[in-house]
Amino acid sequence: MPLSFRHLTSTKQLSRADADAVLSRAAAMDKVLAKGKPDDRMHGKILAALFYEPSTRTRLSFETAMLRLGGQVITADGFQFSSLYKGETIEDTITMVSQYADIIAMRHPEQGSADKAASVSLVPFINAGDGPGQHPTQALLDLYTIAKERGKVDGLRVAMVGDLKFGRTVHSLTFLLGLYKDLHFTYVSPKELKIPEKVTSFLKEKDIPFEEMTTFDGAFDADIIYMTRIQKERFADASEYERLKHVYVLHADQLKGKNATVLHPLPRVGEIDPDVDALPNAAYFRQAKNGVPTRMALIEMLLEG
Amino acid sequence: MPLSFRHLTSTKQLSRADADAVLSRAAAMDKVLAKGKPDDRMHGKILAALFYEPSTRTRLSFETAMLRLGGQVITADGFQFSSLYKGETIEDTITMVSQYADIIAMRHPEQGSADKAASVSLVPFINAGDGPGQHPTQALLDLYTIAKERGKVDGLRVAMVGDLKFGRTVHSLTFLLGLYKDLHFTYVSPKELKIPEKVTSFLKEKDIPFEEMTTFDGAFDADIIYMTRIQKERFADASEYERLKHVYVLHADQLKGKNATVLHPLPRVGEIDPDVDALPNAAYFRQAKNGVPTRMALIEMLLEG
Amino acid sequence: MPLSFRHLTSTKQLSRADADAVLSRAAAMDKVLAKGKPDDRMHGKILAALFYEPSTRTRLSFETAMLRLGGQVITADGFQFSSLYKGETIEDTITMVSQYADIIAMRHPEQGSADKAASVSLVPFINAGDGPGQHPTQALLDLYTIAKERGKVDGLRVAMVGDLKFGRTVHSLTFLLGLYKDLHFTYVSPKELKIPEKVTSFLKEKDIPFEEMTTFDGAFDADIIYMTRIQKERFADASEYERLKHVYVLHADQLKGKNATVLHPLPRVGEIDPDVDALPNAAYFRQAKNGVPTRMALIEMLLEG
Repeated sequence: MPLSFRHLTSTKQLSRADADAVLSRAAAMDKVLAKGKPDDRMHGKILAALFYEPSTRTRLSFETAMLRLGGQVITADGFQFSSLYKGETIEDTITMVSQYADIIAMRHPEQGSADKAASVSLVPFINAGDGPGQHPTQALLDLYTIAKERGKVDGLRVAMVGDLKFGRTVHSLTFLLGLYKDLHFTYVSPKELKIPEKVTSFLKEKDIPFEEMTTFDGAFDADIIYMTRIQKERFADASEYERLKHVYVLHADQLKGKNATVLHPLPRVGEIDPDVDALPNAAYFRQAKNGVPTRMALIEMLLEG
Repeated sequence: MPLSFRHLTSTKQLSRADADAVLSRAAAMDKVLAKGKPDDRMHGKILAALFYEPSTRTRLSFETAMLRLGGQVITADGFQFSSLYKGETIEDTITMVSQYADIIAMRHPEQGSADKAASVSLVPFINAGDGPGQHPTQALLDLYTIAKERGKVDGLRVAMVGDLKFGRTVHSLTFLLGLYKDLHFTYVSPKELKIPEKVTSFLKEKDIPFEEMTTFDGAFDADIIYMTRIQKERFADASEYERLKHVYVLHADQLKGKNATVLHPLPRVGEIDPDVDALPNAAYFRQAKNGVPTRMALIEMLLEG
Repeated sequence: MPLSFRHLTSTKQLSRADADAVLSRAAAMDKVLAKGKPDDRMHGKILAALFYEPSTRTRLSFETAMLRLGGQVITADGFQFSSLYKGETIEDTITMVSQYADIIAMRHPEQGSADKAASVSLVPFINAGDGPGQHPTQALLDLYTIAKERGKVDGLRVAMVGDLKFGRTVHSLTFLLGLYKDLHFTYVSPKELKIPEKVTSFLKEKDIPFEEMTTFDGAFDADIIYMTRIQKERFADASEYERLKHVYVLHADQLKGKNATVLHPLPRVGEIDPDVDALPNAAYFRQAKNGVPTRMALIEMLLEG
């Protein structure tokens, strides 16, 4: 079944059927990768990776996905992105690039830039993060990781920890998990960084139970502990950042006897002690790896579209 | 018929036969692209894209061209270009890179750098813009667009508008159009940015009629209106730039009942109102697209040698 | 015979058998390149080129090597390397990237970073220079060049000239040449930049004869003259750099009647006058070219495991 959209800018576009279709295709892509044999189904196709702000992890994951499918990549990254400082509009840039490439992934620091881009793109467009806005491919790889690690999504208890205000992955993932049944959310954050009203009103509207707290302890009994980095770049006041950056740090002993799966979008900067890495609970590196099959699935499905 | 040169540094190198051969090959490449099937004629070949100053549009267009032919690309871009600040000469860099790649495209901020590079390159070399010097592949894609949009080049009335002093594409294109018959040029610019003597003396020598004016009105009856951006980076005095940047702005109503084809090398920063985009006259995005088949043609022809 | 190691971080890892095996494979790769036909033995494989500090030459050489084998490349370069300034550890970055790519080459400004990376990498890892530490692929291509230019390595007289203190290629190459028989070293440097004790103690331990001197003349009778650049970035005091930068400059007349092969890791900034370039002694551009087959050899051998 094809996806219900041509461009992916927000997880809010996905129906449950869309989400399930992506999970199923990502699992198929994992099998392709496991074979370790060249796959050439995208031979002759080009992905344009336009990163107006740098994000090595996301960019390399997209590029790897396209190359693993036998396609090719053209890249514009960060300060090199000359048209930007020459004052060109996003619409003009995308009109041009969508005449070169077969599919576009764009990261941009401004919220709403992805919608502008999608409105003019002549080829499928994927939002790879638009500032404080959405980051749907991260949310989809998170979902795929949850499904793979736990064998299901319905019925899970999910705790999200850290910067829940600026952390767009937390918002995108909540909207996406909202498609599933019988979930329960626990939001753990300092009061300065609590989950915004746009997310809680979504949960209320859909009658999804959730709690908010400032203490870390409430997270340990969840099925999923989704840790996030407190982002220095979001604070005007450096001392405020220093005070909050390590307010929640996960250690191995806190997980003793716990069944929780620990996720983190990475990079981490101290929120998870390296002593957690060796535990079976630690799924964050497997999560990073899942970015490749998830993006392979999306590229293929959007190009089939 | 092979091209009459091994390296392309200036449009002055081209004979009429060369120009026609490029147009004909570019048209063939357009057919390859239209098929949408992988083409592997450059399989195993490598293009080096060396951009000492960033130019996303030109670089991505060159890279797309090579990838669409089944070749591969190595790229050095802007501030990453470490050998530059380590003080290496262009000649040493090109001697090295021409032992890695099969063909080189270079953008460099200094006039004359392309000739230095071509003088030592062991493989075909293409000037992708050398400061205020030449930008021959832009001129060739402009020519291809003119031929495609108007069905011919001979006999056209061409108006060029804006920064005619620093706009190297205007110079390169005039020299190239000088190969064709019965052309007429109208140069519209503020007196501070008028077309330089090296261009007008060329036209006089070849007995090609032209006029110079400061008012925009004279452009609207041309067959081709070639708009250009006033480039901020060329002005020492910011207020001078502010005064001149929008001295000519094209609006849809100015084109009412006119048959003119509007070109612009892009990016535009206000010289063409977006209300022009929907008119059939607006050929600037098709022009950008033509960069790919034109560069495919040049890469193949130079590698045929 | 497979190499005795899975990751290459230092020339000290190589046995004589390893070094000979690399030379032999590099010679085979030179034959592949000479054919000029596409080679697809790495089809479907991905090299990650992670350059925390820019080094165009080394990066393009690695990328060319992988592409010439039919493989693909993902690249992160210099200031774009966003995870770095977000405070991620090298170990986390490499854990992630080694889940994307099949082999990694990394350049990093800190000594010891390569060992950290290799300790966690899930795929073969190659040190492409770790600050003042090692640069083993440069040393191997130097060795390959010596063997190719002179027909042998045993018994040669090798002079190394310039910055012998900070020049890591000089250290890496000395350790590598230490595997061969009957060598003699002459180290020519200003006293501020003399060869460090870690190198001289290595030579003493292995009973390899060497001399140290401050005058250039002692170099001209060697079989190999290995010139190096005085690196501006190593000096806190600019006037100190100015005083030393051209203390040894090689001119064609100094090589009159001499059989010496002149090497330089490039870029040069005046240490070798261009009048040397035309002499048969001048092997430094052939040396740069040898970077490609040498790295092709290493990539293939490490992936064979």
